[in-house]
Amino acid sequence: MAHPQVTFHPNNVTVSGQDGERLMDLALKAGIDITNLCGGQGVCGSCRVRIIRGKVRTTGKQIGFMDKRSLEAGYVLACQTFLTKDNVEVWIPPESRMDGEQILTDYDASFIRDGSPRSALEPLGKKVQAERFLCYEAPCTLEEGAEAHPPEGLRPICTKVYLELPPPTLDDNLSDLDRIYRELHKVMHELTPRAHFSCLWGLARLLRENDWRITTSVYMRDFGLPLIRAIEPGDTSKRNFGVAVDVGTTTIAAQLVDLTTGRPVGTEASHNRQSQYGEDVISRMIFACTRGGQSPLNMAVISTINTLMNRLAQGAGIRTEEITCIVAAGNTTMTHLLLDLEPCHIRVAPYIPTANRVPLYHTVELGLKAHPRATLHCLPCVSSYVGGDIVAGVLACGMAERSELSALIDVGTNGEIAVGNSDWLVCCSASAGPAFEGGGIQCGMRATRGAIEKAEIRGERVRIRTVGRAKPRGICGSGLIDLVAELVAEDIIDQSGRFIRMDHPRVQVRDDTAAFVAAEASETESGEPVILTEDDIGNLIKSKGAVMAAMKVLLDSLGMSFNDLDKVYVAGGFGAHLDIEKAIFVGLLPDIPQERIQFIGNSSLAGARLALTSTDAFGRAEEISKKMTYFELSVRPEFMNEFVAALFLPHTQMELFPSVVKAIARRRKHA
Amino acid sequence: MAHPQVTFHPNNVTVSGQDGERLMDLALKAGIDITNLCGGQGVCGSCRVRIIRGKVRTTGKQIGFMDKRSLEAGYVLACQTFLTKDNVEVWIPPESRMDGEQILTDYDASFIRDGSPRSALEPLGKKVQAERFLCYEAPCTLEEGAEAHPPEGLRPICTKVYLELPPPTLDDNLSDLDRIYRELHKVMHELTPRAHFSCLWGLARLLRENDWRITTSVYMRDFGLPLIRAIEPGDTSKRNFGVAVDVGTTTIAAQLVDLTTGRPVGTEASHNRQSQYGEDVISRMIFACTRGGQSPLNMAVISTINTLMNRLAQGAGIRTEEITCIVAAGNTTMTHLLLDLEPCHIRVAPYIPTANRVPLYHTVELGLKAHPRATLHCLPCVSSYVGGDIVAGVLACGMAERSELSALIDVGTNGEIAVGNSDWLVCCSASAGPAFEGGGIQCGMRATRGAIEKAEIRGERVRIRTVGRAKPRGICGSGLIDLVAELVAEDIIDQSGRFIRMDHPRVQVRDDTAAFVAAEASETESGEPVILTEDDIGNLIKSKGAVMAAMKVLLDSLGMSFNDLDKVYVAGGFGAHLDIEKAIFVGLLPDIPQERIQFIGNSSLAGARLALTSTDAFGRAEEISKKMTYFELSVRPEFMNEFVAALFLPHTQMELFPSVVKAIARRRKHA
Repeated sequence: MAHPQVTFHPNNVTVSGQDGERLMDLALKAGIDITNLCGGQGVCGSCRVRIIRGKVRTTGKQIGFMDKRSLEAGYVLACQTFLTKDNVEVWIPPESRMDGEQILTDYDASFIRDGSPRSALEPLGKKVQAERFLCYEAPCTLEEGAEAHPPEGLRPICTKVYLELPPPTLDDNLSDLDRIYRELHKVMHELTPRAHFSCLWGLARLLRENDWRITTSVYMRDFGLPLIRAIEPGDTSKRNFGVAVDVGTTTIAAQLVDLTTGRPVGTEASHNRQSQYGEDVISRMIFACTRGGQSPLNMAVISTINTLMNRLAQGAGIRTEEITCIVAAGNTTMTHLLLDLEPCHIRVAPYIPTANRVPLYHTVELGLKAHPRATLHCLPCVSSYVGGDIVAGVLACGMAERSELSALIDVGTNGEIAVGNSDWLVCCSASAGPAFEGGGIQCGMRATRGAIEKAEIRGERVRIRTVGRAKPRGICGSGLIDLVAELVAEDIIDQSGRFIRMDHPRVQVRDDTAAFVAAEASETESGEPVILTEDDIGNLIKSKGAVMAAMKVLLDSLGMSFNDLDKVYVAGGFGAHLDIEKAIFVGLLPDIPQERIQFIGNSSLAGARLALTSTDAFGRAEEISKKMTYFELSVRPEFMNEFVAALFLPHTQMELFPSVVKAIARRRKHA
Repeated sequence: MAHPQVTFHPNNVTVSGQDGERLMDLALKAGIDITNLCGGQGVCGSCRVRIIRGKVRTTGKQIGFMDKRSLEAGYVLACQTFLTKDNVEVWIPPESRMDGEQILTDYDASFIRDGSPRSALEPLGKKVQAERFLCYEAPCTLEEGAEAHPPEGLRPICTKVYLELPPPTLDDNLSDLDRIYRELHKVMHELTPRAHFSCLWGLARLLRENDWRITTSVYMRDFGLPLIRAIEPGDTSKRNFGVAVDVGTTTIAAQLVDLTTGRPVGTEASHNRQSQYGEDVISRMIFACTRGGQSPLNMAVISTINTLMNRLAQGAGIRTEEITCIVAAGNTTMTHLLLDLEPCHIRVAPYIPTANRVPLYHTVELGLKAHPRATLHCLPCVSSYVGGDIVAGVLACGMAERSELSALIDVGTNGEIAVGNSDWLVCCSASAGPAFEGGGIQCGMRATRGAIEKAEIRGERVRIRTVGRAKPRGICGSGLIDLVAELVAEDIIDQSGRFIRMDHPRVQVRDDTAAFVAAEASETESGEPVILTEDDIGNLIKSKGAVMAAMKVLLDSLGMSFNDLDKVYVAGGFGAHLDIEKAIFVGLLPDIPQERIQFIGNSSLAGARLALTSTDAFGRAEEISKKMTYFELSVRPEFMNEFVAALFLPHTQMELFPSVVKAIARRRKHA
């Protein structure tokens, strides 16, 4: 019996399937990544595809995610659609495609400030184009400041040193290896490096065929002592690249760094392919420990990182073999799954990880495609629920080196909060959900091309700006905050997130559900409107409520209030910019003077890059991980009270947000 | 066309060959090791086999090595015999077999001293049987003294530590890895070990499925810091084995050591399979650099060591996976070939090795079959012509730790001499040839079962003793020295090594060549007599002459004489015993009081074992290698003069050997 054939467009890839096989799995088999925020459970609607030809079976769940026209056009959810015996042709619309996705950056923050927004459809300017590879979608703004560069200067995990050795003579008859040691010692002025045994293979010929000119790759973190892990012919000292990786639960971001300058030369991000096994850390752990085992999860994250590294290498015109080291930051579970360690005991009391501070790994033994002798270094974790990502964030913002009291708020799928200074550090973690990365939001997406990243509503006029000035495709975290803040300010929704101005021309009710049309069908890439539903707003409220409650309980337990904080760093995958005022307005951030709050973008990635380019910074990360005290929220009954109190825009206790009270009053007066 | 089939007996293994293929190569293909001392050049006669059936082609070289009866019986040299189109059956006589060869040891030195020799045919005594695995054929007698055991106590390269970890609780919630570190620190009282990344794989399950009882393998020489390279379930701390290897040019000896006690539990030795590519270091280098490349040589030595380790494991009832570390000592070229490094520049000016002090190697990357995370450590070399074997010898005899002036004479294929004390060390090297290991001697063999190791001639009476009291098969180094000394003392040969008493019943002349029948045909295993020819005696004279000349030139250049030496250590593969008096008698050793001379057997193996069981000793070996000054004999014109002067028994300058002059006079008076 012939197997049904499935052809995916526009990729034009055909794979052979079986009766009953899921379309989502077939796409994976074909090497095509379809956006899939809920892990294939049919609850996010992000995997919409259109059946052009052939009969399929569906669970009917797509009905909740599309209008009649779309349904008639053959749109289905790939995760809820199964093959019959028919050959099938499938169209993947742009908003559901993940492959080849590019990260676009936009430093032009003129939109709100100078009041002259460009058209959402205006093409990407040349200046921005040129800076494309300089920064991640949510750039760590620290990159422009002092802290993100190693203050002690460039001292990357792998340094390449070019040597011109004097050829041996009867009087100067050191062995080849001792000759290299001697010359290297002259350059490095420190502990004499030793060589990894593999460097000796073929060394005699290598030296003699290349006129005694070689480049040694010296690794600074091999158990504290410098180790030569590779010797190459000629001068390759200018071709030394590292990769910093933020291993997020939902999104994995990777940055290629030129280790000769310490500057990033490209950034790519992608959906974590582990999502197919569950949306959040807990469901991944359950999959790893009771169902499929950890191996598929490990392979999914390794393959995601390999894809990102390939794209980075292509973009920068280098070979992946020129990547000499990788530094990764992730939460404890993500770190375990990256290293193929069992995450099972993280989940159950007494919550024990295999390791918080892990040894260096050889990339080749993990299947990471870099230089054959490259190493992977994970930033140390603190405990089962405070990972290397938050340590990276604390490292990146430099709060552990200063005497002033700072807080770091990292809003990811888990919201993590660290408070402290150079003397002490306390941290906690609360499940926030992926709303700010586009998860659980009907038109949610990450801050890539076409994502609405800014919004302004004045009466009936709606202005939006998208990443890359492309046709709107969806809404990213910063756009979501802007929209919700504006909807409250314009009294289109009330403070509990319910629509109250049903007469606004952009408010539509479909299937008894109200929604705000952020971009009309005529404006968008897909021809479908980009909308924000009441459910979406509810998800945002829950996310920001969890973060606010965690912050409040932690500070209360320290006998402190928000006003005691000299500095608040906000990190997360919201987008390239976060409007601090609006983030306060929706109650995500505390109502303290705005100049004390700094949005630093992806601080996990920034910390990983810092550790990659500075072994001293890596050492500081280890100190941070040892110094940080974990504060367990789940055993605090007051957390639930605070969470419920925070399920309001901005908060049920309005006295906590005096500036918001004033702003609303001011706005109403103008209206 | 069908390929000719070759069946080897008594192994009963059949392989398929080709017209023109060499019988020696076919035996290798069949996995059968045939003794082959000259590297297949048809000059040693050690690869005699008998063609039972089928037609072969030969070069005719066998004629010089056999009598008419043997030739008629179909005996040929395997290295000089080639297939035709015929199927062939081949009988490998016991003396040509190398497979399954066992090393036998005999501590009973009563033969000469108490004048009551046992019969050569007397079966091996029970006492000796029990001690079989205690010592190598040429035991390092230091094993019984203080020096061969680490004076600082047992501190092997790999220590296994059994831990019973307290299970984690909410109050004691260290990660699995930190828990291991904490408990290990309590036991080890020193630098906290770190773990190799592979230890983390499966660790969570391993701990929990084994009630938190584990054994850690801590390696002490991983770049100076202790490193956990393996974690095993339960208590395996009593199953920790290391292997010391003497990588000789002709013979490879390996000793299995119980690392929990430091005691050897088995010793095996075998012909170095590299011999098929050339007899000595120079011809191996030529092969590696101009003909076949280094790879076949590397594979030959690796396969020889693997075979020895397999035999050792079988003999001791362990699995090779229980071998956690290997320490090897070899000359610089042997060390290079073991590690697959190019030896080519060792041979040509300015004589540069790839490395003298090499890093540790992972056995798995070299193809050595031990524990998957086992390490190989080579004893450091001094220069291209003074290797880790001599450093091992200096380490084993302890001369570099004492103030008295000592010399070490290591007689291998190269004769190496070291002179010095705790302040200074000088060494030199001279090509001695493999005579004392049985090479280049018609009936020569290593000191294994059936080798004549002692001999006494009184008039017409000849007494011999063989290793294992087996039927005589050949003559090993100590037997050779005994025989030559006795032949001179009995005036059967003159001091230049020529036969002068042709009427002695044991002297026979065949094809114009005189020979002494050490064991008659009726006594031997093969039914052929074991003889010593004039050529054999000439080879011995050249070997001992090279050693004596090297010693003399070295001491002369230091302004010293033999009598300045407080101690002389003699090492080499002579056999289990070396009669010092007779070694002086033939002029191999200087004529100084015998109590100052100590035979220490295979000092390279003893040094390797010492380094295996003591990381401090390994550190001392590194110091020795840095301290030792190499003295180049080849640039000294006086060396050739001294060599020619030493081509006499004991020496042309008889005044150097007053005790020999006296002994000869005494003997003649009695006769």
